[in-house]
Amino acid sequence: MLKRIYHLGYAVEDLEVAARFYRENLGVEIEEPEEVEEQGIRAAMFRVGDSAVELVEPTCPDSPVGKFLRKRGEGFHHVAFEVEDLEAALAELKERGVELIDERPRVGVGGSKMAFIHPKGAHGVLTELVELPEKEA
Amino acid sequence: MLKRIYHLGYAVEDLEVAARFYRENLGVEIEEPEEVEEQGIRAAMFRVGDSAVELVEPTCPDSPVGKFLRKRGEGFHHVAFEVEDLEAALAELKERGVELIDERPRVGVGGSKMAFIHPKGAHGVLTELVELPEKEA
Repeated sequence: MLKRIYHLGYAVEDLEVAARFYRENLGVEIEEPEEVEEQGIRAAMFRVGDSAVELVEPTCPDSPVGKFLRKRGEGFHHVAFEVEDLEAALAELKERGVELIDERPRVGVGGSKMAFIHPKGAHGVLTELVELPEKEA
Repeated sequence: MLKRIYHLGYAVEDLEVAARFYRENLGVEIEEPEEVEEQGIRAAMFRVGDSAVELVEPTCPDSPVGKFLRKRGEGFHHVAFEVEDLEAALAELKERGVELIDERPRVGVGGSKMAFIHPKGAHGVLTELVELPEKEA
């Protein structure tokens, strides 16, 4: 079901400071930051092999990432795996009784579909499943 | 400097329970568990694309992973990135003042070299760098 690690999401206090850390010390190329208003975040990513790391800064303290930072501090926030067929994956997980945040796919950037498994349902790891539009897959 | 995500390490209370969760619900193939006595852990991995996820159970409550579990509960523990030349990477990081757990490579399974950047030095993410022996790279 899982094709690859699509990205890791790291929660950071200050996107520019974290981006500079990774650019200067680990030699990565940081892409242009994007703001996602409905999630209350700004994010910038860098590619690593076939995957990426997304640095995520809350723009609002009460967004999910804002609350996460207050509670746990900076660090790993979620992992996203690419899947072939998200609706089928969600139906199967639901039937097996796995606790989901999203029972139906949400439409994300560029027409990709995404849904989260609840960390309680996945041994403490907030796990996103992503299905890419055909041209990108 | 970073070639790919080599693996993610998840801290789990019970390796068999976590392995069953990932095998049955996400369809992954779990490799044979291995015990690493000097780290006080048992671990089993599954491959995802060009990367892997390692499920890590402490065999001793005072091992680093045992302490982590008591403090934070199950979840993401560390990420490992493959690098070309670990000694050069560590020398550069040290020169730039990045806080390291290992200033020199440790030799891991199968002759690979590994070292950890301190999570304080990497925005809260325990980050391992791995250099593989030539035949595997």
